[in-house]
Amino acid sequence: MTTRQDCDVRDQEDPLRELKSLFELPPGTLYLDGNSLGVLPRTALARVQEVIQKEWGTDLIKSWNTAGWMELPRRIGNKIARLIGAGENEVVVADSTSLNLYKVLAAAIAISKAKAPARRLIVSERSNFPTDLYIAESLAAQHGMELRLFDHVDELPGLINQDLAVLMITEVNYRTGYLHDMKALTAAAHQAGALAVWDLAHSAGAIAVDVKGADADFAIGCGYKYLNGGPGAPAFVWVNPRHVEQFRQPLSGWLGHAAPFQFTTDYQPAPGIARYICGTPAILSTAALECGVDAMLAAEPLGGMAALRKKSIALTELFIELVESRCGLKAPEDLGVRLASPREAAQRGSQVCLSLNAPLHEAGYAVVQALIARGVIGDFRAGDPTRLAEVPHILRFGFTPLYIGFADVYDAVEQLRQVLASGEWKQAQFNQKAAVT
Amino acid sequence: MTTRQDCDVRDQEDPLRELKSLFELPPGTLYLDGNSLGVLPRTALARVQEVIQKEWGTDLIKSWNTAGWMELPRRIGNKIARLIGAGENEVVVADSTSLNLYKVLAAAIAISKAKAPARRLIVSERSNFPTDLYIAESLAAQHGMELRLFDHVDELPGLINQDLAVLMITEVNYRTGYLHDMKALTAAAHQAGALAVWDLAHSAGAIAVDVKGADADFAIGCGYKYLNGGPGAPAFVWVNPRHVEQFRQPLSGWLGHAAPFQFTTDYQPAPGIARYICGTPAILSTAALECGVDAMLAAEPLGGMAALRKKSIALTELFIELVESRCGLKAPEDLGVRLASPREAAQRGSQVCLSLNAPLHEAGYAVVQALIARGVIGDFRAGDPTRLAEVPHILRFGFTPLYIGFADVYDAVEQLRQVLASGEWKQAQFNQKAAVT
Repeated sequence: MTTRQDCDVRDQEDPLRELKSLFELPPGTLYLDGNSLGVLPRTALARVQEVIQKEWGTDLIKSWNTAGWMELPRRIGNKIARLIGAGENEVVVADSTSLNLYKVLAAAIAISKAKAPARRLIVSERSNFPTDLYIAESLAAQHGMELRLFDHVDELPGLINQDLAVLMITEVNYRTGYLHDMKALTAAAHQAGALAVWDLAHSAGAIAVDVKGADADFAIGCGYKYLNGGPGAPAFVWVNPRHVEQFRQPLSGWLGHAAPFQFTTDYQPAPGIARYICGTPAILSTAALECGVDAMLAAEPLGGMAALRKKSIALTELFIELVESRCGLKAPEDLGVRLASPREAAQRGSQVCLSLNAPLHEAGYAVVQALIARGVIGDFRAGDPTRLAEVPHILRFGFTPLYIGFADVYDAVEQLRQVLASGEWKQAQFNQKAAVT
Repeated sequence: MTTRQDCDVRDQEDPLRELKSLFELPPGTLYLDGNSLGVLPRTALARVQEVIQKEWGTDLIKSWNTAGWMELPRRIGNKIARLIGAGENEVVVADSTSLNLYKVLAAAIAISKAKAPARRLIVSERSNFPTDLYIAESLAAQHGMELRLFDHVDELPGLINQDLAVLMITEVNYRTGYLHDMKALTAAAHQAGALAVWDLAHSAGAIAVDVKGADADFAIGCGYKYLNGGPGAPAFVWVNPRHVEQFRQPLSGWLGHAAPFQFTTDYQPAPGIARYICGTPAILSTAALECGVDAMLAAEPLGGMAALRKKSIALTELFIELVESRCGLKAPEDLGVRLASPREAAQRGSQVCLSLNAPLHEAGYAVVQALIARGVIGDFRAGDPTRLAEVPHILRFGFTPLYIGFADVYDAVEQLRQVLASGEWKQAQFNQKAAVT
C-alpha cells in the first residue's frame, strides 16, 4: 500500500512539480475543485491591473488597437488550439459555453438539413451538463427536431443511424468523469451520415484532446475550469475547417462581420472561425483567461498535455487505490465509500467521483461539507432522491496535474477517512445552496 | 459670445462638478469619447483586485455564494433599472448587447406571431448600429420575415401599419446623436398592433430614459459606454412585465433555469427577467461594471438623470454655439465645420457630430487624428465615399456630464479651431484602423 512517504518521493521525482509555482493556491486548503473553478494564475492580478490602469484608465479607446484588445479572441484562441489538437486560426474565444454551443449546434443542424432534411434526431447523454441539453432543446424545438437522450454508452449503436442529424456529447461527463471515445463515436456518427459536436468543458486542459485527430465536426469548451481563466471566463469554439464557411451562425454580431468597421447594413460573415465571434468581448475577463492558458502552455517544454495527462492518471489511480484501501471495501474498516467513476483510466477524465453505500446514501452533502471545513475542497452533485441506489449522490474530486501533487492526494484521502470514521459529518450543516459546476 | 471665463464660472456653479472626482481621468487628455468607451471609475481597480485576490484566489468556488457572484446579474440589473425607468426585478445584466437583442427580438417576434401570424415586417433605421441590423437580419431569415430600413423618421408613419410585427430602434442614433421619441413611436407601434424594441446603448446613463413611462415592450443596452463599465462590459436587458413570462427566449442557458442546481434535463425558465440570463457571467468584467453603475447612481442625491440630462444639454448647446461662432458659418473665418446632429436639444442625445464642408469633405479622419495628437479624443465615423454630400464623414464628440465641464468644451473647440486654421491636420497620418463604437 502506498504510504505518505512514497507520495513525497513521487512528488520529488515529478518533472511537472515546478508548475505549481505558476499559481496562487489558497492557503491551508487542498483544492480538488479545479474542474469547477480553476485556481488563480500568478500573473493574472498584475495583468488585469495593467488592463484597468493603463489600457482602460489611461489609453482608453485607443487600446482596441494599441493594446490589441481587438485581437484577443483570436490570439487566445490560437493558444487554446495547441491544447486541443486544433490548427492555427481555427479557434476563437467568445461568450459562454452555452452560447458557443448554440452557435455550433445551429450550424450542425443547418448543415445536416441541407444534406439530409429527413434526419431529425439530436442525440445526447441524459447526464450531460444540463445547459447543453437546454440549448439543444431550444434548437430542436426551433427546427422541428427531437432531442433524444441515452443513459449508457451501450445504447449508442442503436441511436447512430439514418435518423441521426447530430451527436452532441460532452467528452468527459461532469458527474461521473466518464471519458467518451471522441474518435470512435465521431467515426460512427460520420459513417451513419451524421455530424458530431463535442463539448470539451471537462477535457480541455485536463486530457490530451485531439479534435482534428478525431475528425470532429465542432467543439466548444469552457475557460474557467481546467484552463484557470477565472470565474465566468469566456469560452472557446472550434469548427472543423471543412464546415467553417458553410454556414452563417445565427448569433451574427458585428465582430463576426468580415469588415466590422465599414459599418455596412448587411451581414457578411468574416472568413474562417472569426464569424463565430458575436459582440464586443469582455476584456477584463478575457485578459485573465489568457493568463490561465499561458500557465497551461508553460507545460509544453515538459511534455505538454501528454505529460499532464500521464500525471493526471497517476493521481487519479492513486486516489482510487487509497480510497479503496483506506475507506472502502479493501479497508480494515469499510467506511462505505464506493467508486462512481470508471475504474479504467482510459475511460476517465481528470476527476474521480465517489458515492456512499447504504446506510450513508444520503450523507454525501454533509461529508463534502465536513471535508470543506477541514480545508479539502471537493464538491457535491445530487443524485436522484427517488432512486439513490441507481443514481447516487456524488462526491466529486478534480485532480489538476498542474498544481496537485501525490502527497496532496494522500492527505485528501486521510481527511476523508477521518471525516467518515469520526462521524463528524453528522454535524455538518445542511445548506441547500450548491456551487457552480 | 461665451468666453473661457464664462465657462469657468459655469463650472464653479455646476452642482454636479464634484462627480468628476469619482473617475480616474487620463492625464493631459480631454476625453470626448465616453459614448464609445466610458472612463475608469475610481473604485474599479480596488474592487477587481478584491475579486481576483480574495474571491477568486482565496475563496475560490465558495464565492459563488459567499461573495454573491450568483446575484451579480440581478443586483446590478436592479441598479440599472433606476437609470432607465424600470422597476425592481425587471432588469438583468448578461452577455453582450448583440446577444441580448437576439433574445428580446426573438421574444418579440414570437409574441407577434402568436397574435398576428401574417405580420412579417421588422422595421429599423438604416443608420442603426450595424450589430442590431445583423441580429435582426438573422432572426428575420429564421422566421421568414423581412427587415425593412428607413432613412428618415418621416418615413415611419408609412411603415407602422398592419404588416409591422416589430419596430426596433436605437433610441439615440450612434452616428448622428438623433434622439428618437420612444414614447410616441412606441404608442404608434402599439396602435398599429405591433411591438417596440429599444436599444438604449447610447441613451442609458446619457438621457433620462423611461421605459415604463413610454410603455416600451423590450429594451437592451450597453455597459461600457455611458455606464462606464469597462471595455466589453456585459450588457443589460429589460422586458416589460406583461411579456416577460410569455416566451422562453431561445438562448436557454442553465442560469436562466428556474432551478439551475437541480440539474434537471429539461429547461424550465426562471420566473421573471432571470430567464434572460444564459450562461455563467464573466465575473471580473461584471464586477467592474457595478463600479461604473454605482458612480452613476452617486448623482441621485444631486438630481439624478434629470440633472445629468440638463447639464448634458447645456454642454452640447455650448459646444454647438462655440463651434459655429469660432469654426463655422458664424465665425470670422469659416473653417468649414457644420453641425451633423439635430440642432434641437430635445432631438439630440449626449453627443454632437460635426461634418466638414467641401473642400474638406474627405478630411474628417485626419482632423480627428490631429485632435487626438493634441489630446482631444473624439472619434470618426466614415460616411458614404460615393456620396459624401448626403452621407458625410462624421466627427463625433460625446459629452458625459459626470466628468466633462464647460471649460472642457471651450478648450475642445479652441483645439479644433487651431487644427483647422493651422492646416496641421494635413500632416495627420492616415490609419485605416478605427476604434470600437
